[in-house]
Amino acid sequence: MRLGANESAFGPPPAALAAMREALPRTSWYGDPESVDLREALAAKHGCAFEEIVVAAGIDDLLGLCVRGYLAPGEVALTTLGSYPTFNYHVNGYGGVVESVPYAHGGAVQLEALAAAARTSHAKLVYLANPDNPSGSFSARAEVERFAAALPTDALLVLDEAYADFVDAAELLPAAVSARIVRTRTFSKAYGMAGARIAYALAPRAVVETFGKIRLQYGVNRTAQIGALAALAEPAFVAGVVAEVERGREEYGAIARAAGFTTLPSRANFVLIDAGTRERAERLSALLLERAVFVRKPGAPPLDRCIRVTVGTPAERARFGATFAEAAAALDANSLHA
Amino acid sequence: MRLGANESAFGPPPAALAAMREALPRTSWYGDPESVDLREALAAKHGCAFEEIVVAAGIDDLLGLCVRGYLAPGEVALTTLGSYPTFNYHVNGYGGVVESVPYAHGGAVQLEALAAAARTSHAKLVYLANPDNPSGSFSARAEVERFAAALPTDALLVLDEAYADFVDAAELLPAAVSARIVRTRTFSKAYGMAGARIAYALAPRAVVETFGKIRLQYGVNRTAQIGALAALAEPAFVAGVVAEVERGREEYGAIARAAGFTTLPSRANFVLIDAGTRERAERLSALLLERAVFVRKPGAPPLDRCIRVTVGTPAERARFGATFAEAAAALDANSLHA
Repeated sequence: MRLGANESAFGPPPAALAAMREALPRTSWYGDPESVDLREALAAKHGCAFEEIVVAAGIDDLLGLCVRGYLAPGEVALTTLGSYPTFNYHVNGYGGVVESVPYAHGGAVQLEALAAAARTSHAKLVYLANPDNPSGSFSARAEVERFAAALPTDALLVLDEAYADFVDAAELLPAAVSARIVRTRTFSKAYGMAGARIAYALAPRAVVETFGKIRLQYGVNRTAQIGALAALAEPAFVAGVVAEVERGREEYGAIARAAGFTTLPSRANFVLIDAGTRERAERLSALLLERAVFVRKPGAPPLDRCIRVTVGTPAERARFGATFAEAAAALDANSLHA
Repeated sequence: MRLGANESAFGPPPAALAAMREALPRTSWYGDPESVDLREALAAKHGCAFEEIVVAAGIDDLLGLCVRGYLAPGEVALTTLGSYPTFNYHVNGYGGVVESVPYAHGGAVQLEALAAAARTSHAKLVYLANPDNPSGSFSARAEVERFAAALPTDALLVLDEAYADFVDAAELLPAAVSARIVRTRTFSKAYGMAGARIAYALAPRAVVETFGKIRLQYGVNRTAQIGALAALAEPAFVAGVVAEVERGREEYGAIARAAGFTTLPSRANFVLIDAGTRERAERLSALLLERAVFVRKPGAPPLDRCIRVTVGTPAERARFGATFAEAAAALDANSLHA
């Protein structure tokens, strides 16, 4: 079972699948370099201007554009230690300097410490995933607003909202587009289209223009553009996925508690199960893999004491529950012998 | 009629289409970041090592990796004036300096002048499209070998072989992988998969390793990976496309001659029709567009006197023939009145 990559267990929206199937024979044509139809639909959805949206081949692509567009080699980019690593990867690949602030023990991003570090380090880019990956923690609208206001005025906030579809819109920033904030969104998670590589940013016009100078003009798969447009027209499917993911998180909590573990609060499509120590988390992960269940283990303290499990279908969750009980029993047996 | 973007009029291989259709429901999964299956098939096809192949989201993506991996801001990248513009776009976007050598009047890339300019300008990257776009001209194996040997030893040759599938393998460089040469190949042209965004480079291991540090690890569409693999297993389809494109080029030559025009020799899936002057080429292009036929007009001299027409299906070619005769007559009528 593939519960390690936060892919959606619920697949793409049926209308998106049908649209993509119909589009395939025209794979010989390039996609629209300006993604006009999709951007118009996204502007309507988010209540912003067409010119405030840029479509790219996944959030990873957008993170690269942020780094290449707004960081000079040698400048500091700030993140939370152990948060989504691709941001750091782009910074390092471009000659920037990654600095970081650790998570709180409970998995929360430390917004005040992050803003303070941004000021002392003169960070030009600040990365905040909200909801965060891998912790699953979430900072509500007022906290994010306070955080953004506390950043240096010459810093760009990269607000990675890959998992924002799992949160009520009322809990997010109210304005679709805020100055000095690039909000990244994706069709990879709630929309179930990770393999399609399609995402977008809500950003000030000047940022969209800068990205326009360095992005791949024909970088987005044509079938993905058509599928994403159809997916936007099927909000009930996505709402159903979100509700099912919420049920799944609760089930994972119950599964963990039944075996004597706790979970960290999550607002995304995965849950961290707390194994207490890094060693126990590594053993637990290995015991699950021996039983053909693939999960992820965060690499950095303090969350390296946890395993991260993506919410599966009801059948997958049932199977995970049985397997986890076995693995937990084996872990305790090992511990007694150790 | 869409005859301006050098897309394949013959679509993707049927086996690729079937494989992509079957793969679509799993769009919720990420593709393989290492493209293992595809690279193994490509290594077998080209007789090189798995580690000498890197897969990316189109040649444009690979050109960006060449620039970011092998050019420092302020350094010179050399190309032919008016050749494929995306290379220049990446160089400019990264702060490099584009220098160029013009085409010969007949459309040939001037290899000796290009090598000489590479030496005097201390170019770190040299771009050669072969067959070239937009000229369609081709330099055979021995010429390319001589050219590569005449470049500065610290320059990387970016040999863009987007259209190489339209040329006999015996006319190309014999070794799949050559030191200091990155050969880019694509599924966008003969394979009819432009909208899928999938291409690869044959490159020395060290280059593949460098690209590995800066490329998007999950940048390639999963369905495209599966389609490309299936396409490789259907070489007869691609051979049929190549033969049909050759017939189409001959037909375009006859269409042009019948209206009193000449064409430039082409080894790609398009033909340049020589209108004599930039002004006539612009008018001809506009007259075709008025008749719902979209072609391209190269922007830089000396080829700005031409229009570039992609080879269509037999039906499209017949329609192009009739439309071109009309447009040519209108052009001459205009000229008489001018």
